[in-house]
Amino acid sequence: MAKVFDAAEVAKHNTRESCWVVLYGKVYDVTDFLSSHPGGAKIILKLAGTDATEEYDPIHPPGILEEELKPEACLGTIDAKTMPKEEPAPETSEPAQGPPPVETLLNLDEIEEVATKQVSQKAWAYYSSASDDKFSKHFNNRIYQSILLRPRVFVDCSRCELDTTILGHKVGLPFFIAPAAMARLGHPAGEAGMAEACRSFGAMQIISNNASMTPEQIVKDAAPDQVFGWQLYVQIDRKKSEAMLARINKLKAIKFIVLTLDAPVPGKREDDERNSMAGAAAPVPSGVKAAERTSDDTPDVSGGSGGVGQQLFAGTDPSLRWQDTLPWLAQHTDLPIVLKGLQTHEDAYLASLHTPQVKGIILSNHGGRALDTAPPAVHTLLEIRKYCPEVLDKLEIYVDGGIRRGTDIVKALCLGAKAVGLGRAALWGLAAGGVDGVRRTLQILADESKTCMRLLGVENVDSLGPQHVNTRMAEAQIYDGPSGLDSLRQAFKARL
Amino acid sequence: MAKVFDAAEVAKHNTRESCWVVLYGKVYDVTDFLSSHPGGAKIILKLAGTDATEEYDPIHPPGILEEELKPEACLGTIDAKTMPKEEPAPETSEPAQGPPPVETLLNLDEIEEVATKQVSQKAWAYYSSASDDKFSKHFNNRIYQSILLRPRVFVDCSRCELDTTILGHKVGLPFFIAPAAMARLGHPAGEAGMAEACRSFGAMQIISNNASMTPEQIVKDAAPDQVFGWQLYVQIDRKKSEAMLARINKLKAIKFIVLTLDAPVPGKREDDERNSMAGAAAPVPSGVKAAERTSDDTPDVSGGSGGVGQQLFAGTDPSLRWQDTLPWLAQHTDLPIVLKGLQTHEDAYLASLHTPQVKGIILSNHGGRALDTAPPAVHTLLEIRKYCPEVLDKLEIYVDGGIRRGTDIVKALCLGAKAVGLGRAALWGLAAGGVDGVRRTLQILADESKTCMRLLGVENVDSLGPQHVNTRMAEAQIYDGPSGLDSLRQAFKARL
Amino acid sequence: MAKVFDAAEVAKHNTRESCWVVLYGKVYDVTDFLSSHPGGAKIILKLAGTDATEEYDPIHPPGILEEELKPEACLGTIDAKTMPKEEPAPETSEPAQGPPPVETLLNLDEIEEVATKQVSQKAWAYYSSASDDKFSKHFNNRIYQSILLRPRVFVDCSRCELDTTILGHKVGLPFFIAPAAMARLGHPAGEAGMAEACRSFGAMQIISNNASMTPEQIVKDAAPDQVFGWQLYVQIDRKKSEAMLARINKLKAIKFIVLTLDAPVPGKREDDERNSMAGAAAPVPSGVKAAERTSDDTPDVSGGSGGVGQQLFAGTDPSLRWQDTLPWLAQHTDLPIVLKGLQTHEDAYLASLHTPQVKGIILSNHGGRALDTAPPAVHTLLEIRKYCPEVLDKLEIYVDGGIRRGTDIVKALCLGAKAVGLGRAALWGLAAGGVDGVRRTLQILADESKTCMRLLGVENVDSLGPQHVNTRMAEAQIYDGPSGLDSLRQAFKARL
Amino acid sequence: MAKVFDAAEVAKHNTRESCWVVLYGKVYDVTDFLSSHPGGAKIILKLAGTDATEEYDPIHPPGILEEELKPEACLGTIDAKTMPKEEPAPETSEPAQGPPPVETLLNLDEIEEVATKQVSQKAWAYYSSASDDKFSKHFNNRIYQSILLRPRVFVDCSRCELDTTILGHKVGLPFFIAPAAMARLGHPAGEAGMAEACRSFGAMQIISNNASMTPEQIVKDAAPDQVFGWQLYVQIDRKKSEAMLARINKLKAIKFIVLTLDAPVPGKREDDERNSMAGAAAPVPSGVKAAERTSDDTPDVSGGSGGVGQQLFAGTDPSLRWQDTLPWLAQHTDLPIVLKGLQTHEDAYLASLHTPQVKGIILSNHGGRALDTAPPAVHTLLEIRKYCPEVLDKLEIYVDGGIRRGTDIVKALCLGAKAVGLGRAALWGLAAGGVDGVRRTLQILADESKTCMRLLGVENVDSLGPQHVNTRMAEAQIYDGPSGLDSLRQAFKARL
Repeated sequence: MAKVFDAAEVAKHNTRESCWVVLYGKVYDVTDFLSSHPGGAKIILKLAGTDATEEYDPIHPPGILEEELKPEACLGTIDAKTMPKEEPAPETSEPAQGPPPVETLLNLDEIEEVATKQVSQKAWAYYSSASDDKFSKHFNNRIYQSILLRPRVFVDCSRCELDTTILGHKVGLPFFIAPAAMARLGHPAGEAGMAEACRSFGAMQIISNNASMTPEQIVKDAAPDQVFGWQLYVQIDRKKSEAMLARINKLKAIKFIVLTLDAPVPGKREDDERNSMAGAAAPVPSGVKAAERTSDDTPDVSGGSGGVGQQLFAGTDPSLRWQDTLPWLAQHTDLPIVLKGLQTHEDAYLASLHTPQVKGIILSNHGGRALDTAPPAVHTLLEIRKYCPEVLDKLEIYVDGGIRRGTDIVKALCLGAKAVGLGRAALWGLAAGGVDGVRRTLQILADESKTCMRLLGVENVDSLGPQHVNTRMAEAQIYDGPSGLDSLRQAFKARL
Repeated sequence: MAKVFDAAEVAKHNTRESCWVVLYGKVYDVTDFLSSHPGGAKIILKLAGTDATEEYDPIHPPGILEEELKPEACLGTIDAKTMPKEEPAPETSEPAQGPPPVETLLNLDEIEEVATKQVSQKAWAYYSSASDDKFSKHFNNRIYQSILLRPRVFVDCSRCELDTTILGHKVGLPFFIAPAAMARLGHPAGEAGMAEACRSFGAMQIISNNASMTPEQIVKDAAPDQVFGWQLYVQIDRKKSEAMLARINKLKAIKFIVLTLDAPVPGKREDDERNSMAGAAAPVPSGVKAAERTSDDTPDVSGGSGGVGQQLFAGTDPSLRWQDTLPWLAQHTDLPIVLKGLQTHEDAYLASLHTPQVKGIILSNHGGRALDTAPPAVHTLLEIRKYCPEVLDKLEIYVDGGIRRGTDIVKALCLGAKAVGLGRAALWGLAAGGVDGVRRTLQILADESKTCMRLLGVENVDSLGPQHVNTRMAEAQIYDGPSGLDSLRQAFKARL
Repeated sequence: MAKVFDAAEVAKHNTRESCWVVLYGKVYDVTDFLSSHPGGAKIILKLAGTDATEEYDPIHPPGILEEELKPEACLGTIDAKTMPKEEPAPETSEPAQGPPPVETLLNLDEIEEVATKQVSQKAWAYYSSASDDKFSKHFNNRIYQSILLRPRVFVDCSRCELDTTILGHKVGLPFFIAPAAMARLGHPAGEAGMAEACRSFGAMQIISNNASMTPEQIVKDAAPDQVFGWQLYVQIDRKKSEAMLARINKLKAIKFIVLTLDAPVPGKREDDERNSMAGAAAPVPSGVKAAERTSDDTPDVSGGSGGVGQQLFAGTDPSLRWQDTLPWLAQHTDLPIVLKGLQTHEDAYLASLHTPQVKGIILSNHGGRALDTAPPAVHTLLEIRKYCPEVLDKLEIYVDGGIRRGTDIVKALCLGAKAVGLGRAALWGLAAGGVDGVRRTLQILADESKTCMRLLGVENVDSLGPQHVNTRMAEAQIYDGPSGLDSLRQAFKARL
Repeated sequence: MAKVFDAAEVAKHNTRESCWVVLYGKVYDVTDFLSSHPGGAKIILKLAGTDATEEYDPIHPPGILEEELKPEACLGTIDAKTMPKEEPAPETSEPAQGPPPVETLLNLDEIEEVATKQVSQKAWAYYSSASDDKFSKHFNNRIYQSILLRPRVFVDCSRCELDTTILGHKVGLPFFIAPAAMARLGHPAGEAGMAEACRSFGAMQIISNNASMTPEQIVKDAAPDQVFGWQLYVQIDRKKSEAMLARINKLKAIKFIVLTLDAPVPGKREDDERNSMAGAAAPVPSGVKAAERTSDDTPDVSGGSGGVGQQLFAGTDPSLRWQDTLPWLAQHTDLPIVLKGLQTHEDAYLASLHTPQVKGIILSNHGGRALDTAPPAVHTLLEIRKYCPEVLDKLEIYVDGGIRRGTDIVKALCLGAKAVGLGRAALWGLAAGGVDGVRRTLQILADESKTCMRLLGVENVDSLGPQHVNTRMAEAQIYDGPSGLDSLRQAFKARL
C-alpha cells in the first residue's frame, strides 16, 4: 500500500539535491529527472515541494509521466487535508458572468476578444505572442486586404459548395485546423474538442506534436471518414520520435505526417517570455540559448526566460536535412509526408523533387512566431507562381497564417492553395466557447467563404482561379532578385 | 361593421399557432402568412400580439398589405384606449433641440454627422453598414483622393454648366440619386421627398426596388421632364416581378429599368446584423443562410441575425443569367435596360454585346455592402479604359460609391463616366433635413462640381477628359493579370 | 464745420433703406454704396448703425474709403462719449502674458503655434483655411519629405552663400515673400512690416493685390536695391485695374507684375466660411455662387457664407485669356510679367511661348486654397523636367506652397526653381512677432538652407542640381498620361 | 603652498573682465581663456564665479584642463566649507527605486525606455536629438522593416557563429560600438565601461573624438586581441589634431583611424538646443552660425542656442578635401583609414580610388543628426550594389544608424556590409545599466542575430548573401537618376 505524505514533509524537498512534487494526488521524487527534463530544470525547481498539478496538467499529454519517470519515483500519495487552501480570488477581479453565447459573435475578431477575456494570462501570452516586433504576424493579416477580388456577375449563384479533397481524401471545407499546440491551456475540451467540432463539418485537423492530449485521445471519437494529419517535431533522441511514429502508424484516422521545418529553433516571443518572467524566481537563458546550451563563453547578462514556447522546443533537433531526414522517415512510416514552413520558391521547388514521398507543402511563417519579417505565405505562393509554377502540379500546396475572413480563404484558393490552415483562430474559438466555439469559428468562415464565392460567381472550389483576384499590390512586394533555381536544377541533375 | 378588439385579447395570439398583429388600427390574423413572409417568420413572431405599425410602416410601401393578405385576414379594429401607453423617453436622453438648419452645413460629412444624430439606431445601422471590415466602403472614398486634378489656367471660366443627358434625356446635374432602399426609415418624406428635391435641380433619380413607397407615389408630383429609372431585383416568384414591370411600364416618368447584379446574395453587414440582434429574442441564420435555406447539414451554431438588409433580400432570385434574364425582360418591358453592379472589364465588355436592349451600365460594388475588398467603381472604369475602351462608345457608363465631394464627381466624369450616383449621401441628406436636406446635398455637390470645373478651365461636362486627371497612383493598383476578353470574343463569334 | 452725431442717432440707420456706419470717428451714409460694395451688401448690413472701424480697418488699405465714396457720404463726426463702452474681456479667457520672444522659437511650426494663439479667430480662419479637405495643403508639405537629399562629402564647405538673382535683380535669399493678403489681420505692422524684415536680408517681396496697405505705403522705406513684385487680380471693371497699374508703374521699387491665374474663382475654404457664419446674422451664398450671382434658378438651400477669402474675390474677372489679357496688360505696363498658378507642363510650355513679355512663372496650387487635390508645385516642376525641360531655359520658374524647412527650399532649387515663395509662413511670422517675427522666420530658413547646402557639399545656389536629390518616390506619382504638347505645338505653328 | 579662497571671493569674479571658476576643488582664472574656449565664452560665463565641476566633468576628458590652461591660471584651492550647500532634491521628484535589473529587459526598446528615465534631461536631449523633423532618424529604423527575410529550411542549423574579421582583425561579433560622444553624460563608467563590455564579447569599439575620457583611459584594460578604432574630427588648429594622432599612434589597441565626413558642420538638433536654452541666461547663435561666425550682416533675431552637440563642433574644420586631407593624414599616421559618413555611390566609388590608404568606409547619415531626409545607410548600400558593386571588393563597407534588432544586423550583412555600428543603442545600454547594460545590449543583439541566422539556415556570417533578403520595397525608393560615376572615372583617368 502506498505511503501517505503530508504537505509539510513534501515542502522540505524543494532543492536541486532533493526535489519532490505532487501531481494528481501522488508524490514524486524527480531529483534524478531534473537534468533530463525537456523543459529544463528551473521550471521544475520553481514548483519543488508543492502541488504542481495545475501547472503541469494543461501542457502535458497523459502518459508522459509514466513514460519519463521510473516506477520507483512515485513515493506515495498526498494527504489532501494537509494541503494549503487556495485563497479564492477577490470577487471584483473575476466577473461572475461567463462569456456571451457563441452564436452572438459575428466574426473572428469578436471571438478572439471574448477568448482573450476568458483565458489565463499564460494562455493568452502563449497563443498571442509572435516574434520580435510582430511585424510578420500583422503582415499576415494585412496582405490579404491588399488583394482585391474580381466579382463576375449575371451568373447563376444559387448553388455553392465548399467541399474539396486533401491528398485524395474528401473534406467538407477547404480550410483546416493547423497544428497549434497546448489547446488545453485555453479550454479543457482541448484538441479532442477541436476534433469534435471538425466532425460536424467534415473538416480536417492536423494534430500538433505538442498537443496537450495524446493522438489516441484526439481521434478516439472521429467519424469514419474524418481526416487527420499528425505533426512531427523530430527529437534529438530519435528513439522517442520513432516510438511516436509507431503509435501514429496504428491510427487509421491519421492520413499523413506533417514535418515542421519553419522553426528549427524557437523565435523570440516576448509576450510569452515576459509572462513567464513575471512569475519566475530566477531568470533563465533566452532566445537561441535554449537550443545552444553553450553560452558559457559569454558573460552572465542574458535574461529573458523560457516562455511556454521555449519549453516546447526543448529536445527538438535543429539539424534536420533533406538528404538525411526524409530517408529516415521512410524507414518509420509509409504515410505521405507534408512539409510545413516553406517560405521561398527555391524550397518549394526542392520539395517537388522529393515526390512521391512528399505529397504536399504548407507555406507558413509559423504564424509570425519564428522569424520576424519573414514573408507571409501568400508572398511565397506568388513567388512560386512566378518562378516555378510547375510545383503547383506536382504537390498540393497549403497556406496558413493571418486568416480572419472567408475572403482571405477564397483569395488563397484562387491563387492555387489547395486548402488553408487556421492556427490561432481555432485556439481562440476553443477558448471562447469550447467545442461550440470552434464550431462557430468554422461556421462563420464557411458562411463568409460561400458568400464570397457566390458573389464572385463561382459554384465550387475548383472553379476559383487567379482571374478572380487582383494581386497587383502584393506582387509589387515579392522577391525579384536572382533565383536559386538554376543552381538547384544543376545540382539535381548532377546527383542523378 | 368591423369587430372591435381590445389589446388584451390581441396579446393572447402571440404564437406560431395563432399570430395576430395590429397595423394602422386594424387587427390582422397573419398565422397563415408566416411561412410566406419574404422577411421570414421570426421577425413577425417577435411582434406577435402587439401593435406592429411602428416597425412595419417605414419599411413597407403602401399596398403591400392588401397585396399579400387575403381580405378575411383583417379581423376588425383595435380599441385604442386599451393599448398600453408608450412611456415618454427620459428628457436627458433626448435633446430637445432639433437638427441645425441645413443651410449651415458646409459639406457632406457634416450632413452625415447631423443625420446620424437624428435617425434611429436601426436606420443608422442599415444605412451605414457595409460588408465585413468595410474595406471597400472606405476604399470607395479614398480612391478619389489618390486621383489628382490637372487645372488648366488662363482660360475664360465665367460660364460653367452642369447639365448633361442620360440615355438621351436632358438632366440638370451629372449626378443622380442611386437606388437606395428604405428612405422612410430615415425621414417620413421618403423617396417622394427625394423626388421633390430632384425636381428643383432637374436631377435624375433611380427608384429602389425596395423603396418604402410605391413607384406611383414617388413619381406623382414629378415635373414633366423629370427623369426616373426603376431598379429591379428579380424575384424567385417571377409573376411578382412581371406584375411590377407592368405597373412600371405605365409610368411615363420612368425611362429605364436598372437590373441590379452586384448583390445576388446579401453581403455580411455586421452593423446591421448587430443592431437587429440587440432587439431580437432569438438569433436567426446569418449571411449566406438566408439565401440558401439548407443549413440542416451543419450544426446549430450559426448566429447573426437578419438585419434590415437581410430581410430585403428574401425572395430575390440568385440564378439570373445573361442568356435567360435579358430575353425574359424583353418580353415584359420595352424600356431600355441599365445593368448595375459590374466590377470587371470582362463583364462590361459582355454588356456591350447586348445592345441595343442594354444601353448603360453602372459600375458599382454596391457601396461596399456586397463583397468586401471588391474594387471601387473607378478601378473598373480604369480597367475598361485599359482593356476595352471601345465599350465607352457603345454604352453609357455610370459609377457610384464613395462620393463625398464635387471633385470626386468631376474626376469620374473626366474618366468617361456619363454620370455619378449618390447612395448614402442622398439618404443622409433626407435624414438630416427631409426634402431640404436632399436639396442641400445636391446644392453642395453642384457648387463644388462647378468650382472644380471652373478651376480646371472647363465650361461644360462634355469637355472634361482624361487629360484633366492624374490617375497614376490608382493605375498602379488595377488588375494587370490576363484578361478574359479573348475567350469572351471567341465564344461570342462562335455563337454568331 | 462738421456735424456731430451721437451714437443713438446713428444706431437708427441700420437698414437697407438707410444705412450708416462709423469709421475712424466719422459718420458715413453708405446706403447708396451697398449694391456696389465688392464684398457684398450683407457684410455691411451686419454692422449698420454701429462703429465698424475694428472690422473695416485691418482688411482695407487706406484711401479706399475716399476712392469709393462720394464726399457728401461723410455726414459728420461721432460724439465719442455717446459710444457704448466695450466690456473688458474676462481675465481668465485672455492670458496676461504675451507671446514668447521670437528668438526662442526654433522652427516654423513653433512660430505658427505661437501665432495661432496670438491672432483673432477670424485671422486664423483666413490664414489657415484651404479648400475642401485640405488634401493639397497637407500634400504640399508632405511631398518635400518624400524627396531625399544626396549629400556629397569630403569637399570644402567653409563658404556658403545664399544670394542669387531674380529676373536679373540681385537678392540676398533664394526665397521670397509670396503675395499673401490681409497682413494687418494678423499684426498692425502689416505688409510694410514684412518689407522692413525683407530689407534686413535683401529678400524679395511680392505685394498682394489684396494687401491691407497701399503699395506706396509698403515700399516707402525700402532700401535702394530692394526688390518687389506686385500681384494683379484683374478686375471686371478694367478701369480700376488700369488705375492701379498706373500707380504701380510709378513705384521704382516694383520690378515686375505677377498675374495670378490659379484662382479665377474662389475655392471652398470651409474654415473661413465657418468662422464667418459663426458671426453672421444670415447665411450668404457659398462657393461658386459669389462669382456667379445667378443662383435664382436653384432653390434656396444654399448656405455657407462668404468668409474673408470670398469677399476678396468680389469683382475679380474670371474670364482672363492668353490671347486677350496679355496684350491688354502690355498696353498698361512695360514691367515684365510673371504668371502665377501654373499647374501643368502644358501651361508652363504655353507661358514659354509668350516671352519676352512673360519672364517667369510661379508654379503654385494657391497654397491648397483653390482646387483641392490639385498637384503640389514640385509635381508640376517634375512634369516640366519630364515633358518640356526647355522651358527651364526660357523662363525663370518659382514654386510656392508647403515650405516649412530649409531643406524644402534647397530641394526645390535643386530641381530647377530659381526661388521659392513663402505664403502662410510669412503671415505666421508677422502674427507671432511683427517685424522681428518675419525676420526670425527668414533667419531660420536662411540658417537651415545654409546648413543643408553645406552638408550637400555645395557653396552657392547655382551649384545645386538634380544630382543632389532623390525624387524617385515623387516621380512615381506624377502624370504620365498623354501630353497636350503636340497639339499646342501644332496650334502655335499654325498661328505663325 | 597654494592659496585657499573662500566662495564669496570667487563669486565676485563673474564677468568677462575677471572670470574665475572652481573645478575639482581648485580655483582657476579663465579670463584669458574665454576667447579660445572651443565651446564658446558664453557657456563659461554662465558658470563664472561658481563651482563648475558638475557641468564640466562629464563632457571633458581628463588632461584637457592642463593642456589648455597655463599653470599660473590655477590660483589655489577653494575652502569647501564656504561653498553653498546644494539643496537636496525633493523626494517626490526622484523615485527611490533604481532601474530594473538589465537581465529583465528583453529588447533594445525596453533598454532605451529605462535609460530615458535614468539620465538627466541634458543627456537625453543630446543622445536622442536628431536634426529638423527627425525624418532620417525614424527612417533609419523603418527601412529595415521594409526588407523581408527569405528563410531557407531543412538545413542543419545546430551550429551558428557570429565571429568575423574587420580589416583583418578577428572580432567576436559582426557589430561594433560606433563613435558616439559623451558617454559619461549618461553613466560614470563612460567609454571605458563600453570597452569592458566589448571585451566580454571580443567586440570592436570605435572611440569618439569627443569621448568624455582619454583614449589611453579607454583602452587601458583591453584584452590583448581587443580591437579599437579612433575617430578623428580634424581641427582647424591642425597642430592639435597632429598631437592627438601622435598619441593614438602609440596605442597598440587602436588599429585604424575613422575620419568622419558626414558632419562638417553641425545639423540642427532641436531637442538639444531646446534643452540648452531652458537653462541658458542668454540665447546664442544657432545652426550654421557656430561654424560661420560671420552673422554680423544679418539682424539680431537669431535664436536657438548651442546644445551639447553644437559645442562639440567648435574648432572642427569644415574645409576637408580628398586631395588635401588624406595626404596630410598619411604624414601623421601609418594606420589604415576608414571614411565615415558616405551617403552616395559616387563618394563610395571615390573612396575606392584611395586604396590602400583607405581600407574601409562607414555608410552613415550620422544617426539622422546631420542632414534631415538624408538617405539611410541601407539606401546607399543598395545604390552601391546597383551602380558600382566593384567597390564591395575593394573596400570593407560598414553601415550604422537605426539598428534595433538582430534581424536589422543580419539584413545589412546580407547586403554586403562587413559589420554594423551601434550608436545610440550602446549609449542607452550604458545609461540603463553601466557596463552590464552595454553587455546586455550586445547579448540581446547577439542572440537575436544568431536566431535569425539559424532560421535563415546559415551557419556563419560569410554565408549570408543578397539571396536571403527581399529588398524590393527599398529598391523602389533608391536613387535612379543619372550617376556621377562617368565624370568621376574620366577625371580619375585624366589625373593619371
